[in-house]
Amino acid sequence: MYRIPILQMGQTLLVTIQVDMQDQMALALQDDLANKIASSDAKGVLIDISALEVVDSFVGRMLASISGISRVLDATTVVVGMQPAVAITLVELGLSLEGVRTALNVERGMELLAQARRAENAVAR
Amino acid sequence: MYRIPILQMGQTLLVTIQVDMQDQMALALQDDLANKIASSDAKGVLIDISALEVVDSFVGRMLASISGISRVLDATTVVVGMQPAVAITLVELGLSLEGVRTALNVERGMELLAQARRAENAVAR
Repeated sequence: MYRIPILQMGQTLLVTIQVDMQDQMALALQDDLANKIASSDAKGVLIDISALEVVDSFVGRMLASISGISRVLDATTVVVGMQPAVAITLVELGLSLEGVRTALNVERGMELLAQARRAENAVAR
Repeated sequence: MYRIPILQMGQTLLVTIQVDMQDQMALALQDDLANKIASSDAKGVLIDISALEVVDSFVGRMLASISGISRVLDATTVVVGMQPAVAITLVELGLSLEGVRTALNVERGMELLAQARRAENAVAR
């Protein structure tokens, strides 16, 4: 089966979603990400959806679910690159991606993750 | 038409190839990359092919061609994440990806790009 690659950069994992997600693929991605977070000690997950022209409730739930899984494994998830039209449609559909953090692009997402890590370290002290 | 997204991280552009390339898609990627390098002042291009289980002569030529275009636009290209089986098949086919730099994974590729930039700066002085 086709699996979406997960790239590691330091303590951040990067996933670029380029194709319309199906059930099996979404489940595989959740599995792979959970395993990768555990094995790599990653603290952040960036999910780029700039290639998606449609985000329906299925993808919305998948993003929320990945976000939840990461949180339990002590990693922060940021969804980046959402097209403006997608944002409009999401809100019109009543999907607000609750619990999912977003950023304009990968760079901003990385800044957000760095901030989250700093805040965590400050609390830990 | 489906286009492969190009992510920007500082002066580096990152492309994850996840699907088998066809003519149109390869041409579109070359176009998009050339435009993005010019508009973003990027100095490095990372192409992740970890999802590809087959790299035939068409993809090989595309990688060489992207590498050449980037060079003319003053950017270094590094192909990362090649699966061992792909490397074996490539050599058996007599395709050695001449002129294409490679690295084991994205992190190593970034180090390579950073080195290339340092070397360039040293020469410029």
